[in-house]
Amino acid sequence: MRKTVGVIGAGDASGTDTERAFEVGKEIAGKNLVLVCGGMSGVMEAACRGAKSKGGLTIGIIPGESRDEANPYVDIPVVTGLGHARNIIVVRSSDAVIAIGGSFGTLSEIAFALRLQIPVIGLDTWDVSPEIRKAEGPKEAVAMAAGLIGIGDGRSLR
Amino acid sequence: MRKTVGVIGAGDASGTDTERAFEVGKEIAGKNLVLVCGGMSGVMEAACRGAKSKGGLTIGIIPGESRDEANPYVDIPVVTGLGHARNIIVVRSSDAVIAIGGSFGTLSEIAFALRLQIPVIGLDTWDVSPEIRKAEGPKEAVAMAAGLIGIGDGRSLR
Amino acid sequence: MRKTVGVIGAGDASGTDTERAFEVGKEIAGKNLVLVCGGMSGVMEAACRGAKSKGGLTIGIIPGESRDEANPYVDIPVVTGLGHARNIIVVRSSDAVIAIGGSFGTLSEIAFALRLQIPVIGLDTWDVSPEIRKAEGPKEAVAMAAGLIGIGDGRSLR
Amino acid sequence: MRKTVGVIGAGDASGTDTERAFEVGKEIAGKNLVLVCGGMSGVMEAACRGAKSKGGLTIGIIPGESRDEANPYVDIPVVTGLGHARNIIVVRSSDAVIAIGGSFGTLSEIAFALRLQIPVIGLDTWDVSPEIRKAEGPKEAVAMAAGLIGIGDGRSLR
Repeated sequence: MRKTVGVIGAGDASGTDTERAFEVGKEIAGKNLVLVCGGMSGVMEAACRGAKSKGGLTIGIIPGESRDEANPYVDIPVVTGLGHARNIIVVRSSDAVIAIGGSFGTLSEIAFALRLQIPVIGLDTWDVSPEIRKAEGPKEAVAMAAGLIGIGDGRSLR
Repeated sequence: MRKTVGVIGAGDASGTDTERAFEVGKEIAGKNLVLVCGGMSGVMEAACRGAKSKGGLTIGIIPGESRDEANPYVDIPVVTGLGHARNIIVVRSSDAVIAIGGSFGTLSEIAFALRLQIPVIGLDTWDVSPEIRKAEGPKEAVAMAAGLIGIGDGRSLR
Repeated sequence: MRKTVGVIGAGDASGTDTERAFEVGKEIAGKNLVLVCGGMSGVMEAACRGAKSKGGLTIGIIPGESRDEANPYVDIPVVTGLGHARNIIVVRSSDAVIAIGGSFGTLSEIAFALRLQIPVIGLDTWDVSPEIRKAEGPKEAVAMAAGLIGIGDGRSLR
Repeated sequence: MRKTVGVIGAGDASGTDTERAFEVGKEIAGKNLVLVCGGMSGVMEAACRGAKSKGGLTIGIIPGESRDEANPYVDIPVVTGLGHARNIIVVRSSDAVIAIGGSFGTLSEIAFALRLQIPVIGLDTWDVSPEIRKAEGPKEAVAMAAGLIGIGDGRSLR
């Protein structure tokens, strides 16, 4: 079974957020982790693009009814047809979640992750709980996720 | 088509929150509105109990697989079997939502409501957006909901 | 807690099927049972119209994202936003299900009902299991449902 | 974007059905297609085991709330927490579906596939529509799926 890291963030994210997402995706792939996301545009697409730039594997859990709605950097679209209810599947299918920026959709995902006790690492995101671990940048965020999942040398969490 | 008000809050709520929920339920029934909730214990049960004390109609959208899991004050259990993903159905099925207190589950529902532009009235709940209308007490909360839905004399929102 | 009977059938049903659905709805309301359905057109709308003609209560569990999509005879729309996945909620929320005619959507609902051991009464529908009880007409179908649910004089199943 | 083949069948399948599922999984991996299934035991586990015996990639869309519920041959568990409602996601996420044997759960998936016009290939399964393409054995079933998806030399469908 492969370890997965979820990347959550807005579909209409700012330039800063999509740049961070790209770097996060690259780091995830670099650690041989599978990237899980909502499969659409913005933060999701940038993260997938980053992961693919390093030959990673990307899973897009999409809200719509057709695999053609996934962004072009998704390897495997999981087509839910559930609309926003798919957010909880993104969270549940991730060993840890990195939240970047923040729309209300992202907030719903953070809330679900906290409710389900799935670790959340935040990059300039909603500050609704001390349980959200704050990272300074993409590299640290993925190192924290990897450490929490039990991948890597563990030094990342020192 | 009947107008509905959703009541959201924790299944293991405090005494203050359940007392408020009971009063909210009573007020909802008093205005001939249908109460929608997650159908379980705590805030949900107290609200249903309040509504039934005034002869109201209560819909419980439950996460589990059996109608027997609904609290005894639910008239009509909608049995989803979807776990926490049912939260979004509670929100979508409400013309306005009153949030009481606040667990992470409640936060996920508030986030969905804000995302979907369904009005949220808060009674001592998560303060994540200026769009959440703060009420002082149950009576005001339901009056605000009724005003937003277009029921009542409208004075409540002055 | 109110007893519920689900009515399932195509959104683009034949005249015969919608006439039967109307009669089924009337009979359900006549026995003071709550009608649950998918809330859309065809068999669903006809059943709701029948129930309302007798002052019954109708719940429409709709696939879309807006309560405005429900047919005009739905009292309380449960707005799922889940597309076809809402079919299983229709079934789970019913104490017994009456299937009228039959599209593939109806077949998915029958299959779920059989899987979940919820009684299915068939009016000229899919013949995929001896567990589907065949009724001759609307009156008999609802009498069978009522008997199975434990409402009425019980003679219906003798 | 990778092409996917769904394998559907009972969790408590017969020996014949699990043997067929193992061969189907092997063939899917042999054609470099991704295997999608419900992630549990029986037909699902056998198909995953077959795919892994050839180094394939397996996605298990599981009904429960924990990735630990997936069978040990699932590479990437998609954790839905939706119970049987996850069946429709299995179907929607597949470019073509191979149905092996048949419980009522499988019937619900076949019905959804027919409803959504996703090709279904049947190996000794429910005979509810002429649209279900019957295969003689696992090799032919996967060749038919590959042909329908537009992979392979196309001779399989002549």
